[in-house]
Amino acid sequence: PVVCFVWQIAMIILFGLFVRYDDESDAHWSEHKHENNITSDIENDFYFRYPSFQDVHVMIFVGFGFLMTFLKRYSFGGVGFNFLIAAFGLQWALLMQGWFHSLDPADGQIKIGIENIINADFCVAGCLIAYGALLGKVSPVQLMVLTLFGITLFAVEEYIILHVLHVRDAGGSMVIHTFGAYYGLTISWILYRPKLSKSLNGSVYHSDVFAMIGTLFLWMFWPSFNSAIADHGDGQHRAAINTYLALAASVLTAFAISSLSARKGKLDMVHIQNATLAGGVAMGTAAEFMISPYGSLIVGFICGIISTFGYLVITPFLEKYLKIQDTCGIHNLHAMPGVLGGVVGAITAATASESVYGHEGLVNTFDFKEKYAERTPAMQGGFQAAGLCVALAFGIVGGAIVGFILRLPCCWGDPSDENCFDDEVYWEVPEDEESILPILEYNSHMVGKNTDMMSESNFTVEQS
Amino acid sequence: PVVCFVWQIAMIILFGLFVRYDDESDAHWSEHKHENNITSDIENDFYFRYPSFQDVHVMIFVGFGFLMTFLKRYSFGGVGFNFLIAAFGLQWALLMQGWFHSLDPADGQIKIGIENIINADFCVAGCLIAYGALLGKVSPVQLMVLTLFGITLFAVEEYIILHVLHVRDAGGSMVIHTFGAYYGLTISWILYRPKLSKSLNGSVYHSDVFAMIGTLFLWMFWPSFNSAIADHGDGQHRAAINTYLALAASVLTAFAISSLSARKGKLDMVHIQNATLAGGVAMGTAAEFMISPYGSLIVGFICGIISTFGYLVITPFLEKYLKIQDTCGIHNLHAMPGVLGGVVGAITAATASESVYGHEGLVNTFDFKEKYAERTPAMQGGFQAAGLCVALAFGIVGGAIVGFILRLPCCWGDPSDENCFDDEVYWEVPEDEESILPILEYNSHMVGKNTDMMSESNFTVEQS
Amino acid sequence: PVVCFVWQIAMIILFGLFVRYDDESDAHWSEHKHENNITSDIENDFYFRYPSFQDVHVMIFVGFGFLMTFLKRYSFGGVGFNFLIAAFGLQWALLMQGWFHSLDPADGQIKIGIENIINADFCVAGCLIAYGALLGKVSPVQLMVLTLFGITLFAVEEYIILHVLHVRDAGGSMVIHTFGAYYGLTISWILYRPKLSKSLNGSVYHSDVFAMIGTLFLWMFWPSFNSAIADHGDGQHRAAINTYLALAASVLTAFAISSLSARKGKLDMVHIQNATLAGGVAMGTAAEFMISPYGSLIVGFICGIISTFGYLVITPFLEKYLKIQDTCGIHNLHAMPGVLGGVVGAITAATASESVYGHEGLVNTFDFKEKYAERTPAMQGGFQAAGLCVALAFGIVGGAIVGFILRLPCCWGDPSDENCFDDEVYWEVPEDEESILPILEYNSHMVGKNTDMMSESNFTVEQS
Repeated sequence: PVVCFVWQIAMIILFGLFVRYDDESDAHWSEHKHENNITSDIENDFYFRYPSFQDVHVMIFVGFGFLMTFLKRYSFGGVGFNFLIAAFGLQWALLMQGWFHSLDPADGQIKIGIENIINADFCVAGCLIAYGALLGKVSPVQLMVLTLFGITLFAVEEYIILHVLHVRDAGGSMVIHTFGAYYGLTISWILYRPKLSKSLNGSVYHSDVFAMIGTLFLWMFWPSFNSAIADHGDGQHRAAINTYLALAASVLTAFAISSLSARKGKLDMVHIQNATLAGGVAMGTAAEFMISPYGSLIVGFICGIISTFGYLVITPFLEKYLKIQDTCGIHNLHAMPGVLGGVVGAITAATASESVYGHEGLVNTFDFKEKYAERTPAMQGGFQAAGLCVALAFGIVGGAIVGFILRLPCCWGDPSDENCFDDEVYWEVPEDEESILPILEYNSHMVGKNTDMMSESNFTVEQS
Repeated sequence: PVVCFVWQIAMIILFGLFVRYDDESDAHWSEHKHENNITSDIENDFYFRYPSFQDVHVMIFVGFGFLMTFLKRYSFGGVGFNFLIAAFGLQWALLMQGWFHSLDPADGQIKIGIENIINADFCVAGCLIAYGALLGKVSPVQLMVLTLFGITLFAVEEYIILHVLHVRDAGGSMVIHTFGAYYGLTISWILYRPKLSKSLNGSVYHSDVFAMIGTLFLWMFWPSFNSAIADHGDGQHRAAINTYLALAASVLTAFAISSLSARKGKLDMVHIQNATLAGGVAMGTAAEFMISPYGSLIVGFICGIISTFGYLVITPFLEKYLKIQDTCGIHNLHAMPGVLGGVVGAITAATASESVYGHEGLVNTFDFKEKYAERTPAMQGGFQAAGLCVALAFGIVGGAIVGFILRLPCCWGDPSDENCFDDEVYWEVPEDEESILPILEYNSHMVGKNTDMMSESNFTVEQS
Repeated sequence: PVVCFVWQIAMIILFGLFVRYDDESDAHWSEHKHENNITSDIENDFYFRYPSFQDVHVMIFVGFGFLMTFLKRYSFGGVGFNFLIAAFGLQWALLMQGWFHSLDPADGQIKIGIENIINADFCVAGCLIAYGALLGKVSPVQLMVLTLFGITLFAVEEYIILHVLHVRDAGGSMVIHTFGAYYGLTISWILYRPKLSKSLNGSVYHSDVFAMIGTLFLWMFWPSFNSAIADHGDGQHRAAINTYLALAASVLTAFAISSLSARKGKLDMVHIQNATLAGGVAMGTAAEFMISPYGSLIVGFICGIISTFGYLVITPFLEKYLKIQDTCGIHNLHAMPGVLGGVVGAITAATASESVYGHEGLVNTFDFKEKYAERTPAMQGGFQAAGLCVALAFGIVGGAIVGFILRLPCCWGDPSDENCFDDEVYWEVPEDEESILPILEYNSHMVGKNTDMMSESNFTVEQS
């Protein structure tokens, strides 16, 4: 509570010192247009990226938020804390990413525009993925600390991968998904709760339908996620098509494996809610490359299989043997497809050729300009692979550090093992249908009492 | 299950053989720009159509999906199977429509871009409409067969209507709605179930609220549906405005008729969920024409009336006398408004004139170019009417064939009459609030037992 | 019911007489392009505003609609009547606003395009805000009268503020929110119900989750709301960024105050559903100005505090002492932040300078052209403040008049005090889980009867 206040005031001061509008959002835009011979307002970057931004925004707040409402008594916490940490994180992300990517050397200030706010949403996504592993087991204060460090680590990791290594990762298979998932899983491993209550760690009929809202908005808008900061023109166009195809293929294999694995071929909602999305994660790096439509389908096909398989086999294994409790199964939805996406990106980059891309296309797609003009596709492939390792290292090491911080005996206010997955701890929960149960017990109790009384009166009768 | 696998592998092979990026999504776009004197990336078709595409995508997956969650115990099936067959169908649609519309004669390959994926979503919409008539009564395997044939028929029908007859139908009143509705109704007629259970064929309070999510997303994004593949510039602009107006008028008449028809003027959620959308269906053909704002209102006005009237009178009639069971009432929402939309389109086209459209406008709107340069508006009206007949014929004949295939004694895995509308057959359903009922019965049973015991003890008393 | 019909027919006639397409949506667009040297279809206003329009449309129908589903037994009424009056109002708004803003002097007709339909949605928003104060306490007919007068008043008020006073208010802090809120509150004050039932005026678990759908879509798309009709280019770009930041700050302070105020620091869903949005309301006027990123954060920070504080203190105070019953708390979400937004806008305008905006930027942002070329920023600040007073006056006086009309003894069909907040009055409500309760009572009744009978038999025993 107080943390929010202090933090928000700190944000205001830091924004006051550092953050200004960029050329395209400043009132000097009309002068900027004259100077750069821009003929129409429609060439403002806003019109290239705003529709995608709004889709990404929906994914972050409704997509991730409602995906986490599947627990029977933690829907408020799922959607509410998702809202809190996303709003908290995006301000810090604007600053951290600004210092690394958008600092204007002329005046030492961060110039923000539409691309910065998309990137802030992306950055927050990494932390929300980590929240998925910890859902129901941590307090809001712990979540805010997790987010604060997560975004800081993210910004550094992103700077190393995108700028130092000059790696392409428009949809963030490595930067967002691999990092976020291993960050969350490592923290969950350190915060292991041996006596975790099972009774509330499940869904009810309507909470599963709510979660489908999250799933579908993530699924539908993933093409916007992967194309939001891709190159103007063919880059955004191709990224959207590739992601669309990979996602479609994931759906089919997720349904197939889910049905094959269960008795009587019944489908499991957990698989449908999650594994169908794996194709989007895995196309994060390669979506803007010329992976070709069938390549996208192959990636989606494989991801649907490994992700569903992960829910069936790997999550129970992780929990039993490695002591990693993963509430939402982010290992299956983000970690494995993210790593696969990094690998696919590296291979696609390494095999790129002028015959497929055209000379200009190759230079534009991989940004082989200025000091990178000498880089070949094969070298780029190697750097892509190196970027994946950086993301993994940041996730695991960063998660270990933050995990130990969160385990320090301190006033975290985290719930006891038996109160996990219960909104009652942090929310004023309205009485509702479920309050029928106590009534029932009360009734049957009264009935019992009546009959007892009657037995007694009977007894008197007998005695009479 | 295995069907999904084999099918997905077949898709990968076919995409590998036939599908490539088109000029605007290929990395050669920068060269294409130079050749065609395109000055800015913003003129890539992606920026004209992507926002509309995303809206259409939401309609297909959230709109249709949640509209079908209204049944009390078939919400998983409604939204889940909608998801499955849409993802399954869009891949096949890209191929089928590609062969008919986007085949590059130079190399025999299909070149895909944003317009193709919008069209694939449209094509899938036809099959989802058909699903509406069969909701809760067929197995996933039957749905996939229905979709496979449905999309094949759709592509042929669309080719005949749009290319052979050169008919305009941007929002698909004929091509999508009329075809899809009669296709589904004919199949439902052939798969008639005389002893269909009634108890689960209804809604509960919260399932009706879920269905409103579907209704509203369909309603709000219908202007995008009708304008998504309309002509750049004024075509898309006008299609959106006309659809917006027709939908608004439908809402008022649907509420009015619903209230007039019931005892005490109470409103029926089924009408509000469905009949409010009829105006959008009926504007599918004429939306891009100069039907004028009041024309759009008239169309919406009439459709709201006939659609609500259909729910009140025609659906019960169809079920009782024609043995057509129509779970979602697609006859009222798609069939009648679709036919009306075709007729309105034909009339609007036949009465088009240069004074209203301008010479250039008339040529652009109806595409009176090249070999169609001689066609007059009156002739165009005739061809539009012919297109409607083609759509009807394909729907009915195609539905009859597919219906007989689905009735063949075979391993379809369709539910028995008493298991219809129940998710238990295909899904792992979580235990939930409704599990209170057994408890109740258990309690009252115990109470009965107690009282029985007491009567017995009473009896002993009597005997003593 | 009959009202809807008559009204819709009147609309058709009025649209037939007055409404036509504007230059950009008419088929003469291709000629208009030649005349104005427009080189590409992408410069049609449609492509500047359509994505924002769709977001605004979602806010009106899903955002406001689902925000009002929070009551346990008034979800149908919340989302359904919202749908009805929005569809009803937008047609009237197109006419009223058209007469005031878009009348073509050449032929006396209203020329509509994308900007008109955005404005119609905005106009409807004012009436939906007023509905928030009256939710559950009025009949559909009363709502339609409220909407009819509300839109008429809105159009006049908007004309005075934007045209006569030449005030800037792109996101409508004054024009929409201040007016709408005081309009609704005054009506609620006049329609005071002293014996209002309390038992149904609350939420259940799942109805709160439904309301979060509304909250999140409002929150996410508010940047589109404030930028939808801002100037092309930097104006829209800046409005979106400023609103995004203010909303993020509101979330943090709303969570903080909610937690600080309650026993054990528990969060209250009502605050999270509403107060998080206050930052967007308050940025309605200043969003397109150069308020700078930290300025936006400060506005959001303050609004989150006063709005949550309002729910805790002011709403109970209003109800107890001023006899204003405010179901959704619109005083906290729209009235106070709206007034604050007007004040912030006046200050920001008054302190604008050429050094910050650039000469051309200043002229464009405040439209200091033609007869307003002489206006200085300080004068503009004064006019902005005057605009706020006009909005307040229209809201209060208009609300008083309409309130008295709605209190006339007449056939309004409004519910009695004990039937407020109950869908049963206007909707066919399906039986559902809650129908367990009667069963329960029946059971316990039967049990009681059994035991009574047994007591009787006992008695006979005694007698024997």
